[in-house]
Amino acid sequence: MKKLKICIAGLGNVGSSVVNLIEKNSSYVETKSHLNLEIIGLSAKNKNKERSFDIKKYKWAETPIDLLNINDAKPDILIELIGYEKGISYDLVKSALNQKIHVVTGNKAMLALHGQELFNIAEKNKVSLLFEAAVAGGIPIIKTIKNNIFLNKIKKISGILNGTTNYILTTMEYQNKSFNDVLEDAKQKGFTSDHESKLDIGGYDAAHKLTLLSSIAFGGEIDFNLNEIEGIQNITIEDINFAKQLGYRIKLISETCVIDNKIYSSTKPKLISLDKPLANANNALNAINIETDQLQNLYLEGEGAGGLPTASSILSDIFEIASNSEFRSTGYKTGQLIEYQKFDSSNIESKFFLRIRVIDQSGVLSKITSYLNEYNISVEKILQFADSKENHIPILITTHKIKMSELLNSVKKIGDLEFVDENISIIPIE
Amino acid sequence: MKKLKICIAGLGNVGSSVVNLIEKNSSYVETKSHLNLEIIGLSAKNKNKERSFDIKKYKWAETPIDLLNINDAKPDILIELIGYEKGISYDLVKSALNQKIHVVTGNKAMLALHGQELFNIAEKNKVSLLFEAAVAGGIPIIKTIKNNIFLNKIKKISGILNGTTNYILTTMEYQNKSFNDVLEDAKQKGFTSDHESKLDIGGYDAAHKLTLLSSIAFGGEIDFNLNEIEGIQNITIEDINFAKQLGYRIKLISETCVIDNKIYSSTKPKLISLDKPLANANNALNAINIETDQLQNLYLEGEGAGGLPTASSILSDIFEIASNSEFRSTGYKTGQLIEYQKFDSSNIESKFFLRIRVIDQSGVLSKITSYLNEYNISVEKILQFADSKENHIPILITTHKIKMSELLNSVKKIGDLEFVDENISIIPIE
Repeated sequence: MKKLKICIAGLGNVGSSVVNLIEKNSSYVETKSHLNLEIIGLSAKNKNKERSFDIKKYKWAETPIDLLNINDAKPDILIELIGYEKGISYDLVKSALNQKIHVVTGNKAMLALHGQELFNIAEKNKVSLLFEAAVAGGIPIIKTIKNNIFLNKIKKISGILNGTTNYILTTMEYQNKSFNDVLEDAKQKGFTSDHESKLDIGGYDAAHKLTLLSSIAFGGEIDFNLNEIEGIQNITIEDINFAKQLGYRIKLISETCVIDNKIYSSTKPKLISLDKPLANANNALNAINIETDQLQNLYLEGEGAGGLPTASSILSDIFEIASNSEFRSTGYKTGQLIEYQKFDSSNIESKFFLRIRVIDQSGVLSKITSYLNEYNISVEKILQFADSKENHIPILITTHKIKMSELLNSVKKIGDLEFVDENISIIPIE
Repeated sequence: MKKLKICIAGLGNVGSSVVNLIEKNSSYVETKSHLNLEIIGLSAKNKNKERSFDIKKYKWAETPIDLLNINDAKPDILIELIGYEKGISYDLVKSALNQKIHVVTGNKAMLALHGQELFNIAEKNKVSLLFEAAVAGGIPIIKTIKNNIFLNKIKKISGILNGTTNYILTTMEYQNKSFNDVLEDAKQKGFTSDHESKLDIGGYDAAHKLTLLSSIAFGGEIDFNLNEIEGIQNITIEDINFAKQLGYRIKLISETCVIDNKIYSSTKPKLISLDKPLANANNALNAINIETDQLQNLYLEGEGAGGLPTASSILSDIFEIASNSEFRSTGYKTGQLIEYQKFDSSNIESKFFLRIRVIDQSGVLSKITSYLNEYNISVEKILQFADSKENHIPILITTHKIKMSELLNSVKKIGDLEFVDENISIIPIE
């Protein structure tokens, strides 16, 4: 029987689920894996909050840092679930690693921004800094990439990495509601907070996760600045409905690949063909597609958030620490990581979906099509909504393949026309 | 740099792909994982066959057993890809393990039938017997279960584990062709042979794979006799089309769970709702859904066969051998494995799809519905094909929930009716 002493900092939904799970499954875990997991200390902002377990059974640390030396006992593993980008999360993790304590965290923001430094410290101290819970909730995507298919050359990873935005897009479609209405609903139901929803909706949360995936997929240093980020705040119900008529669903897609030895990492809304699994990963599901030199596609789908699925990932990291002797947190030695440059995506060719709002007057459609032609936008399909209540009506267009840079130039000119609203929405088609 | 000396027995599609991959990626693998993979010997039935690599670059063993001591060198890893259920495959693997040589194999039939003995031998000799390539081609399902989510309590695994039958069912639907026509096509195109297709179509190949999944999911001894097996040979194009009208697709589903401390492992055709990912894993894809106490669903989809994807799994096993020091092939110590009994499935309740062929005469539909009622089969939907060219016409029915045993009794009585063909097709609805 191997004994592991565990401390947990942060007792929100995930932290509480970890405590519940260890309480409930301890004898199962002992029998199955010969591991004895002992929680030797807890810490959270508010000691007196009502919880799903009896905190009196555990030692309580007044500050998270106290967990690292609780009644003169040192934990084997610190679980960091406070979730700050820096501050106490960063200080705690750094202290733990420097004291040769393994760290398991779900903190994608901290790792995307300070991971390189922290992984260096972990390696120097010969301990693990594991983060399965930081990406895609219960889907074991980190272990899949760094253990299961590590000898594959990954070509591209693309996926849905944020459950909240996926839930919003699904609900807009199913209930035919506007973005703002669905977001308000979600906030009122407690699915997301003001602070969280900014990170979610703006695409930043997904980009944090993509930063980690990109690093382990391509052996690059962790660098959040490599990301192109665009959120879902401008997606309208017309966009969603027209896309569906054309056989697509709009998803917030995070994708990363290496082009010309540079990293292209992008999180933005895209139109995905309905016959692809990614288009059918709805509600709060996350999903990831991996293309390698050996696998045309390996697709994983599962719960992207929630206490229990994320706790499953925390436990899988504990299991890795118990089983493995190499403690290579990212799969690589930090010294071998490549410092990639950011790929200039303006030359990437794609089909695009455009929404142009124009003043509702006669002859406007023929005018706009002749301008599109003049400005080099080759139209595949076009749809005009006649019955808009606003004085601007949307014209929805799909283009043939064109370079992003050329499209932007042309769109700018069209936006300058007097009867056209200058905010033209552009969504790439996968 | 860690050096691993490798021998390969069997140079079909997969074996050749392994050689190609190691040749092509050796410097990539060295840089990425500090592993030097050296092929020190090859063996195959026919030395003179044209191959995708230059066999003169390698030492050739006249018999597979000679690989274990080739020019006085002992390999670290033997890769067994001969694929016999017993015979030379079994003898070779056993010899290798007894000589403390790790074994990597894609041989599901051998492991499903003799795995318990072989895993015991591996454990005794402190070497690994790994088999990622034996189940679901390039999908790393074995490592997912035994490493990534090992501390989950698995409730149920269900999936599509045979690419050939999935390809046949998909092609029947898309091309509106009969089972026999599609099978003949597949044989002529070399996708499957007479011998293979019997194992594929009869459900045995999928059941071999399910035997291994069930064992690692529930910590049971490997026991092929626990399987219920039914193939796809009786599926007609009417079945497929009617199922689709009802919102289902017919798939050969392998599923395993524990009920009342007994194992229910079943491979049979089932109707799967079109809104489930499993229903949309078409052509030669494999797909697996896992339900646990912590994950409502974890879904993996990918190529279930083919040289390169399967070679990817072989390499992932080599990587595991190189990285891991515990060499626990199935995740368990063999002594802790449970000897499960087979669950009696006749009491499982399900909705069912029935195809009853009746003589085409007036009033037959009303007669059959009154008999169904009399024999306790509660009908949900019913469809009669009027324009059949045969003198028997199919009546297609979906039932409400009923126990399999009760349904079988009733169906037997209906089959005894003079105007009913006694072969009534029964397919459960998921």
